[in-house]
Amino acid sequence: MEDAKEQSKSALKKAEKQAKMAAAKAEKAAKQASLPVVGGKKSDDIIGITVSKTENFPQWYQEVVLKAEMIEYYTEISGFFIMRPATMYIWNTIRKWFQERIEAMGVEETSFPMFLSQKSLEKEKDHVEGFAPELAWVTKAGDKDLEVPVAVRPTSEAVMYPYYSKWIRSHRDLPFRLNQWNSVVRWEAKQTTPFLRAREFLWQEGHTAHLTEQLAGEEVLQILELYAGVYEQLLAVPVVRGRKTEAEKFAGGYYTTTVEGYIPSNGRGIQGATSHCLGQNFSRMFDITVEDPNEKGKHIHVWQNSWGLSTRVIGVMVMIHGDDKGLVLPPRIAKIQSILIPVGLTAKMSAEDKEKHLKHLDEIFHTLKKAGVRTEVDLREGYTPAWKFNDWELKGIPLRLEFGPKDAAKDVVSYARRDTGEKGTIAIAELTTKVPELLETIQQDMYNKADTAYRAHRLQITKWDEVVPALDAKNVVIIPHCLVPACEDKIKELTTGRSDDAAENAPEGQKAPSMGMKSLCIPFEQPGGLVKGETKCLNPECTRLAEQWCMFGRSY
Amino acid sequence: MEDAKEQSKSALKKAEKQAKMAAAKAEKAAKQASLPVVGGKKSDDIIGITVSKTENFPQWYQEVVLKAEMIEYYTEISGFFIMRPATMYIWNTIRKWFQERIEAMGVEETSFPMFLSQKSLEKEKDHVEGFAPELAWVTKAGDKDLEVPVAVRPTSEAVMYPYYSKWIRSHRDLPFRLNQWNSVVRWEAKQTTPFLRAREFLWQEGHTAHLTEQLAGEEVLQILELYAGVYEQLLAVPVVRGRKTEAEKFAGGYYTTTVEGYIPSNGRGIQGATSHCLGQNFSRMFDITVEDPNEKGKHIHVWQNSWGLSTRVIGVMVMIHGDDKGLVLPPRIAKIQSILIPVGLTAKMSAEDKEKHLKHLDEIFHTLKKAGVRTEVDLREGYTPAWKFNDWELKGIPLRLEFGPKDAAKDVVSYARRDTGEKGTIAIAELTTKVPELLETIQQDMYNKADTAYRAHRLQITKWDEVVPALDAKNVVIIPHCLVPACEDKIKELTTGRSDDAAENAPEGQKAPSMGMKSLCIPFEQPGGLVKGETKCLNPECTRLAEQWCMFGRSY
Repeated sequence: MEDAKEQSKSALKKAEKQAKMAAAKAEKAAKQASLPVVGGKKSDDIIGITVSKTENFPQWYQEVVLKAEMIEYYTEISGFFIMRPATMYIWNTIRKWFQERIEAMGVEETSFPMFLSQKSLEKEKDHVEGFAPELAWVTKAGDKDLEVPVAVRPTSEAVMYPYYSKWIRSHRDLPFRLNQWNSVVRWEAKQTTPFLRAREFLWQEGHTAHLTEQLAGEEVLQILELYAGVYEQLLAVPVVRGRKTEAEKFAGGYYTTTVEGYIPSNGRGIQGATSHCLGQNFSRMFDITVEDPNEKGKHIHVWQNSWGLSTRVIGVMVMIHGDDKGLVLPPRIAKIQSILIPVGLTAKMSAEDKEKHLKHLDEIFHTLKKAGVRTEVDLREGYTPAWKFNDWELKGIPLRLEFGPKDAAKDVVSYARRDTGEKGTIAIAELTTKVPELLETIQQDMYNKADTAYRAHRLQITKWDEVVPALDAKNVVIIPHCLVPACEDKIKELTTGRSDDAAENAPEGQKAPSMGMKSLCIPFEQPGGLVKGETKCLNPECTRLAEQWCMFGRSY
Repeated sequence: MEDAKEQSKSALKKAEKQAKMAAAKAEKAAKQASLPVVGGKKSDDIIGITVSKTENFPQWYQEVVLKAEMIEYYTEISGFFIMRPATMYIWNTIRKWFQERIEAMGVEETSFPMFLSQKSLEKEKDHVEGFAPELAWVTKAGDKDLEVPVAVRPTSEAVMYPYYSKWIRSHRDLPFRLNQWNSVVRWEAKQTTPFLRAREFLWQEGHTAHLTEQLAGEEVLQILELYAGVYEQLLAVPVVRGRKTEAEKFAGGYYTTTVEGYIPSNGRGIQGATSHCLGQNFSRMFDITVEDPNEKGKHIHVWQNSWGLSTRVIGVMVMIHGDDKGLVLPPRIAKIQSILIPVGLTAKMSAEDKEKHLKHLDEIFHTLKKAGVRTEVDLREGYTPAWKFNDWELKGIPLRLEFGPKDAAKDVVSYARRDTGEKGTIAIAELTTKVPELLETIQQDMYNKADTAYRAHRLQITKWDEVVPALDAKNVVIIPHCLVPACEDKIKELTTGRSDDAAENAPEGQKAPSMGMKSLCIPFEQPGGLVKGETKCLNPECTRLAEQWCMFGRSY
């Protein structure tokens, strides 16, 4: 009994807090819109999304990440974004999931300084060339010039590997695996987009060393599968696993594997996360060797990998699942999985009946909590249920549960799914099983919907003339390709041009030329039909034979 | 049965891995010492600590953090350190403990950019003056000069508060609380020391806003108590809670509370962590206001706090508990709490007997694991038990468990405590209760020992002539003080001078003058005996009356 009382109290406290928050929000929205606040309430249109996802995808995206309070633009310095609590919850969920799995693999955590010296950076030629244009250089401390400027890490190969040479002394130290969670800076010249392209972003970077190419290669794929798991199992986002072409691989690496996503709204491909085998390039430059266990006196340069997953994953998730009402969160990464809202409490009802109903609601709330469902109850006063519905829809909460006197009479709770809008009822007696089941169904359905869209827009094409129309129809294409970098450049050039469809979303008066396509990956799952030594590269200006099916697309 | 098999297998695998590691280490040690490896083994002196804690405390500390593999010096850029897995385990344990508690308080997580603009920094005059000399300035991106240089955050007040003004719109948004885990850069001119003073360090920084001074003040103390908890409950380090004097408070803040530690080896005080009330200084400068809930139309500047705890805590722990054998870890933050080592396996024993004994050992290992004790078993071959003992002592493992045929005959396990060296036996039947109990005893005893030392060296002094001798005898002092900044400067000057004792640890040929003392804090627990309006400030050159007892000391 004491317990129930305490719980009731805490629910009341929470309700009070939520009421405060809501009123504050209305006031805020009014301030922003320079409109007077009427009775602490505001109409829906101010907090809602003002453009449709289909009509203006870039603005829709910007509004969603801002209004769902995931992101704030850092106006002090362009290209930087503030990650708000709604974002950090998702990132921490991903972090925990991934961290548990790499710990089980034997990867240990470390933390290296954020700065690197020119000297260590320059050790690997391709690497420095790849990153130099985007390096942020610290040249002064206080009012004194530094003797030697230092750069903020864009990635930590050059920061870490001088120490690998010191720490790895014998083949018995292998595999040697470290990971760190930090932020890196790449001073992009291109236009930045929240989550997808920022001058600073959060990520994890793993750096490992192995005795043989084979052992390194096994880990590359093991990690890639974890990255696919973050997308598919947590974010309900399908990805294509594959290898990057030479032109698109990591600067200084041996080969790069990748999971590639797809944004149906604009038909663009997007790199999801990459797991690189660095080969022996870095170990040669940084002198990381061990004695060959099979041949005394012979030294082997270790085989290295590096792999990273960034907050970009969150942006991909928003773009794929969101709709005109706002964010749509997959249940597994939603801080609030279901929101419980009282409805049908008319002015005519007696205070006693209301109290009784709210007590019933509170019991349902605690039933759900106990069943492990991340639930909140919205008891804010002065707001219509409709207003609350919109508010929680904007924030992407997967499942809305409504409870009114009519529901109570039937011993049910009414629900509405955020992803499909589907409505129904659940018997109160079955809540503890049905709600978790429904959340899992939502998770699965969200994945299936995205997967269906991706599969429908991944076209296997063998006629060059079909390529640009396919891109314009928001597809990515899988074509026979020679895999030669110069050919990729040419393909990009040939597919760049004016296209009404692609320019549709460009700002008024600035109809941009349509973007050329680039290679996304060589999918591990190769379709049939390519005859080695016979099938030609699809590029009409290329005379080479095709090596593999390669996925191309307009991309982020 | 299948389970037991699997467990045995995993124990074997672990043993193999450990054997590999050990052999690798011996080879490494030999390489470093340029000595040949004899049968994969090396003598103890190479991996052990070469100086005594009493004789050369600075070098002892450096050796401990290096050889226990907590830290690596970042030789590329001076003043930076690499945090190795042994450190990150401790930091993550602290992080988890603290994070759970602030989450329960309603603090949410955020992530702001690492750079700040000159403009926002300059808004609070004292703040910019306090941090300007240590700012790292990014002036170039790639090969282009930035139009406006940006600084790496030394702390995030100036990064975050422009947005607080946007987000806090109503008193219903209060309390508004955000925290972030990140690293900050302060380009110190002073000599750096691993953990204690580094140019970049990991920390958490909380930034909150409240309606009233009282509400802000309550949180300041709530957080301070959590900081004391990190030291006292996790790290077994006693601290004194108090307020900083005006001279020592946070630049731009209203008042600063602190937990102050003490290093017995050199008698120095060390600031543990600080929780600041910023008052309304920043809210005025950044225009963070809400409407007074009690007076329509009247606007109130919010009351702000900021609070931070850094990796410094780990250094304090090392300095206090370590001994001539190396690190000593309190059980609650030790990744490995007990290490199980087979002993007495003579060459004369039959293979069968050995196998039987190791099977028994494996059962003990799994019994401990099941009891929730973080245990490893050291089955490395080619090493004497004595070598293993030294190795695990260097790493600070709280409890060594030995198991030999003689122990088996008596159904006991022998143990040795890392903190006291005390030895004894535990009946195997009682392991699951006795080992956790013993670990808790070790934790408590470590705290008590440090607490006794601190109390014995915190001298309440009322005669000026006793001050410097007290400092020279490695005490901190509590004296009646006027709390005026100029008087503190004078006290520092008066206590700076030559003192053989203090100069003892200076490098050969560079006998330094002894360090002057500075104020550490005004302890919340004030001793009696100070009569307001009567007791004089202890500084002989000060004519003012004493306000409070103030703790002074030589310090980090």
